Amino acid sequence: MIKAAILGATGYAGAELVSILSGHPETELVYLASHSYAGKRFSDIYPGMRGVCDDILREDDIKKAAEEADVVFLSLPAGLASAMVTDELLSHAAVIDLGADFRLHDKDVYESWYKTEHHSPSLLQTAVYGLPEIHRNTIKGKRLVANPGCYTTCSIMTLYPLVKASLIETDGIIIDAKSGTSGAGRGEKLGSLFCEVNESIKAYGVTTHRHTPEIEQELSEAAGRSIVLQFTPHLVPMNRGILSVCYARLKAGVTEESIKEAYSIYKDEPFVRIIDTLPETRYVKGTNLVDISWRMDKRTGNIIAMGAIDNLVKGAAGQAVQNMNILFGLDEKTGLSRGAHSPL
Amino acid sequence: MIKAAILGATGYAGAELVSILSGHPETELVYLASHSYAGKRFSDIYPGMRGVCDDILREDDIKKAAEEADVVFLSLPAGLASAMVTDELLSHAAVIDLGADFRLHDKDVYESWYKTEHHSPSLLQTAVYGLPEIHRNTIKGKRLVANPGCYTTCSIMTLYPLVKASLIETDGIIIDAKSGTSGAGRGEKLGSLFCEVNESIKAYGVTTHRHTPEIEQELSEAAGRSIVLQFTPHLVPMNRGILSVCYARLKAGVTEESIKEAYSIYKDEPFVRIIDTLPETRYVKGTNLVDISWRMDKRTGNIIAMGAIDNLVKGAAGQAVQNMNILFGLDEKTGLSRGAHSPL
Amino acid sequence: MIKAAILGATGYAGAELVSILSGHPETELVYLASHSYAGKRFSDIYPGMRGVCDDILREDDIKKAAEEADVVFLSLPAGLASAMVTDELLSHAAVIDLGADFRLHDKDVYESWYKTEHHSPSLLQTAVYGLPEIHRNTIKGKRLVANPGCYTTCSIMTLYPLVKASLIETDGIIIDAKSGTSGAGRGEKLGSLFCEVNESIKAYGVTTHRHTPEIEQELSEAAGRSIVLQFTPHLVPMNRGILSVCYARLKAGVTEESIKEAYSIYKDEPFVRIIDTLPETRYVKGTNLVDISWRMDKRTGNIIAMGAIDNLVKGAAGQAVQNMNILFGLDEKTGLSRGAHSPL
Amino acid sequence: MIKAAILGATGYAGAELVSILSGHPETELVYLASHSYAGKRFSDIYPGMRGVCDDILREDDIKKAAEEADVVFLSLPAGLASAMVTDELLSHAAVIDLGADFRLHDKDVYESWYKTEHHSPSLLQTAVYGLPEIHRNTIKGKRLVANPGCYTTCSIMTLYPLVKASLIETDGIIIDAKSGTSGAGRGEKLGSLFCEVNESIKAYGVTTHRHTPEIEQELSEAAGRSIVLQFTPHLVPMNRGILSVCYARLKAGVTEESIKEAYSIYKDEPFVRIIDTLPETRYVKGTNLVDISWRMDKRTGNIIAMGAIDNLVKGAAGQAVQNMNILFGLDEKTGLSRGAHSPL
Repeated sequence: MIKAAILGATGYAGAELVSILSGHPETELVYLASHSYAGKRFSDIYPGMRGVCDDILREDDIKKAAEEADVVFLSLPAGLASAMVTDELLSHAAVIDLGADFRLHDKDVYESWYKTEHHSPSLLQTAVYGLPEIHRNTIKGKRLVANPGCYTTCSIMTLYPLVKASLIETDGIIIDAKSGTSGAGRGEKLGSLFCEVNESIKAYGVTTHRHTPEIEQELSEAAGRSIVLQFTPHLVPMNRGILSVCYARLKAGVTEESIKEAYSIYKDEPFVRIIDTLPETRYVKGTNLVDISWRMDKRTGNIIAMGAIDNLVKGAAGQAVQNMNILFGLDEKTGLSRGAHSPL
Repeated sequence: MIKAAILGATGYAGAELVSILSGHPETELVYLASHSYAGKRFSDIYPGMRGVCDDILREDDIKKAAEEADVVFLSLPAGLASAMVTDELLSHAAVIDLGADFRLHDKDVYESWYKTEHHSPSLLQTAVYGLPEIHRNTIKGKRLVANPGCYTTCSIMTLYPLVKASLIETDGIIIDAKSGTSGAGRGEKLGSLFCEVNESIKAYGVTTHRHTPEIEQELSEAAGRSIVLQFTPHLVPMNRGILSVCYARLKAGVTEESIKEAYSIYKDEPFVRIIDTLPETRYVKGTNLVDISWRMDKRTGNIIAMGAIDNLVKGAAGQAVQNMNILFGLDEKTGLSRGAHSPL
Repeated sequence: MIKAAILGATGYAGAELVSILSGHPETELVYLASHSYAGKRFSDIYPGMRGVCDDILREDDIKKAAEEADVVFLSLPAGLASAMVTDELLSHAAVIDLGADFRLHDKDVYESWYKTEHHSPSLLQTAVYGLPEIHRNTIKGKRLVANPGCYTTCSIMTLYPLVKASLIETDGIIIDAKSGTSGAGRGEKLGSLFCEVNESIKAYGVTTHRHTPEIEQELSEAAGRSIVLQFTPHLVPMNRGILSVCYARLKAGVTEESIKEAYSIYKDEPFVRIIDTLPETRYVKGTNLVDISWRMDKRTGNIIAMGAIDNLVKGAAGQAVQNMNILFGLDEKTGLSRGAHSPL
Repeated sequence: MIKAAILGATGYAGAELVSILSGHPETELVYLASHSYAGKRFSDIYPGMRGVCDDILREDDIKKAAEEADVVFLSLPAGLASAMVTDELLSHAAVIDLGADFRLHDKDVYESWYKTEHHSPSLLQTAVYGLPEIHRNTIKGKRLVANPGCYTTCSIMTLYPLVKASLIETDGIIIDAKSGTSGAGRGEKLGSLFCEVNESIKAYGVTTHRHTPEIEQELSEAAGRSIVLQFTPHLVPMNRGILSVCYARLKAGVTEESIKEAYSIYKDEPFVRIIDTLPETRYVKGTNLVDISWRMDKRTGNIIAMGAIDNLVKGAAGQAVQNMNILFGLDEKTGLSRGAHSPL
């Protein structure tokens, strides 16, 4: 049994992680921590989990966690993880960070988008960007995994085959993404109140959203050249789900067949479905799946590529468990086989 | 492996059954039928299930189903099941009917509430009312299980301990119940349109809802005397969930302790949680659980007992699988262990 | 022109009041105050009102407000109004309090339900309970109006004709009420977050909700005897609306005709609609209307009387304006004629 | 008083028109027709309007309507209006068509996008495209107004100033638009059911949506050259509202100042608000307003221009009334002054 610790267990992503790991056949939860709720039971905070996980929440003490556990999951505000993780600590436990601190290879890019100091730049080279469908082989054997962001997972996976196969112009890419409200977290903020979110849609973080450089980094790497793109997130009045609608100009001569061929790199992926119909977030809700579809437009010369995920599963906790499975040599699907209900 | 057939597989309850049985380790789906969609793949109708269940849907032919399967689940409009099921058919396969045709012991009561003829009144004695927490021992070894309704499961389970232990007056009981919209089914009805349901709440079927006699039958049996009660359902703008809020006058001298004692009959039940806080439907969403709580009011002399379930799981497909597990001698929880996510 | 002031203008009820008064042909807003947002424009906080009300918000200074205005509306947390209002102040301006401080005639009842001291008990006799359909004649000429609560307006108006005409037993009354989430206010509370409210329903404040004594006071007065009743509120995942479903035992011999007759006391009321179909909150959304309907149940001997309002309009700001219109001798409908959209 | 007729009065747009015109001080509704509900009262279909509009619905007889009314509003499925309207009929009454039949100047473009024959191509020159902020002067004195579509109103108004002032490249424009569900109409379609829409987001009609040529026609006219653009609509789980997020490459040298200057063409428009913060559909809900904002992105060289409207008001019924006001020489705002509530 893998002994697992979670710091930040009562945020939405952390709680989803508790939920998934509670049903994972090869994992034992040994350390659940929550700065806000230390001393309470996890199921006091998430009563849906009564009888499933009634563990007492502890303080966010990463050293203790690393002593007791084989893997420590971090689900913390930006800047905390980079101050906590050290090489010494990684010698005790593997770390899978659901936050942003180790995702960007370049400290300066991190600091300019996150407006906060990075406390352990040397670890940026130690960390691997934990998108298994792209970096699976690099992830194996690592001690520090930077679990990708929700928008980024969805957007990168949708565009990656097109970039990798050089089917689209790499300038002028536009990603118009939409997210459910759990993506805003469980903080008591005015903008997250029911009556402020319900019955409305808005864009936010236009030109400034922090997931932008993460998408650019990964697609640039795939393209072999620097990509600058437009990323616009939206808040949708629903609990879960991300839809990334990506616009790019097709290179001359690209055919439906060549696009199909490009996406066939996912053909053996257990969590990717290339579909004919258009993705809807409800069809991946509660699962670790990515649904991807596309349309060529001969009138405009564009391709519109669309991907859908559950932001808390493939966009956070599910992907973290997928990474854990890789790190520990398990079948990647272990503990992630929950199918979709409908309507959920 | 138990071979299972489902007739009416593309309604919401039928589809939830497909979803649960697809993950059930001891069951194989051998016959999926849908009158409306015969010839199509199940996953064409429920794209969330692509890759999980891509079976071709067949016609609603119960004889073929019973030849190929060990158990046939029926999820059909009122009146169809009673015209299909025969003793001969039951010799080939067990039948678990998610509809109402075999729930009421008295043909006249059925016909007066359902305004339709009952086609096989003799089977009313063959059938067992499939509420495992109350009738577990009678269910074992039966061939025909009448799976309870959603409102009724929630309401009966909430009130049963109080009635059984004679703690409340049996006249004057009021059940004010609230349901998510999936309870109205997948039919293309004006009243089920998004814009007609969203941002509103209403009562419906006031004094006339068909689940009334079913609740009265079961509670009367528990009380040993005829109970007539008030049942009022409501439509809530959410996908899933039922909350039953039950009002009754406490008998003189009843204490908190005696109520606790009464509810302790559920103490070993795998799917019942007696909780201190008030039930919320989100905490049982996607699970086969019933959350129950109560409050005594010394000012009024009333008890307010509240129960919450997922109408498509414990209120339909999950309970049907629980019944199947009992019929076939499996652990009752098999295939039903999905924990709750939050928020879902 | 009536000069109006609002203290607490940025809560949901206060903002609805700004919205209504901005369109009121006989009113001028002269003083808008908000403790949290003093110094900002009202339309910075409610951008939907840009161009309609861009006034600068001021501090909650009731004296200044009363100097500048003819009427001061208070929309403040419990306990503040009773510390602010004095006879001296009432000599400068009429006060319409949307809070609870002056609704209960009995200081002890107030203090035992609200768990806070009442600072001006002598004013409890000065104040009038501002439910125009019942107390219109008493309201005229008063200087201090206690605007009723949202649940109470809906519940009292639904039950009042039955109690007044002695058609129901006054013991055993049960009110099961459901409210949209704006009723919880604009405070940054965990329980008001989108993901904590959406896709769920719950009861709350069972046996302890503060609107209980207010309903009892008014119905007792109508009955000429003390009424103790059961009131249970619920939180519904929608922005606005209250549905009160009221259960009572009919006295022997009561007929449909006598019930119709009882409700005919509302026949000239501009804001009451007695309807045949069942009320739905969406049909009164954005209006000052009350829709009321009922069903007799011969099986149980009960009447189920149902009422629906918009909690922010008839349940708060609209009724406050209705009271202002009465105080100042205007047609009661002035400024309140906004019809219903559908779907809204 | 202007005598008004509405054909198709019980669709969502038609009903909104009834609601607005019921409160319009210069209009009298003389003929309400509904193919599906002829013979019933309007308020039987829209109970929120009881007491406001209880007129009996008549058959869709445009000749009778034109005899009795000064203006006939058509809110009908595509293809019906073009078969109904004639020069003769226009001599009796002005016609404002909320449908698509007279919006496109080119019959072939209409037939290729709508896949249906156009029955009166000669009237395409008679009709005016009823977007007052752009074509106000042409609208005056016309007898046939083609009221713009909802997506198109929002998208054109957002982009028009940029195109008109030649600030953006006219190739490569992308419009990613999001709509509430009332835009799908009141038809009893599976895809409009609550449980199929709620808690999900999807794109639809990708590369094929019929509002595309309408947007292209108007922007091409403004640009003085043919524009081909990408338009992608989405379905959002909310009742009302459209958000158009428009991406374009800025021409070299364009500054914030020049953009501001371009949008200043709206500075005297009663229904346009150019705002600093980002638009949210809730802030225009229930109003005839358009909120517009933009962001320059120096990293990408793009401008992101965003507009929000209420699809049933400025996107349909409100704009139709605005057009009527122009036709009949009234103040454009007459009957359209309803301010925004919040939260609604």
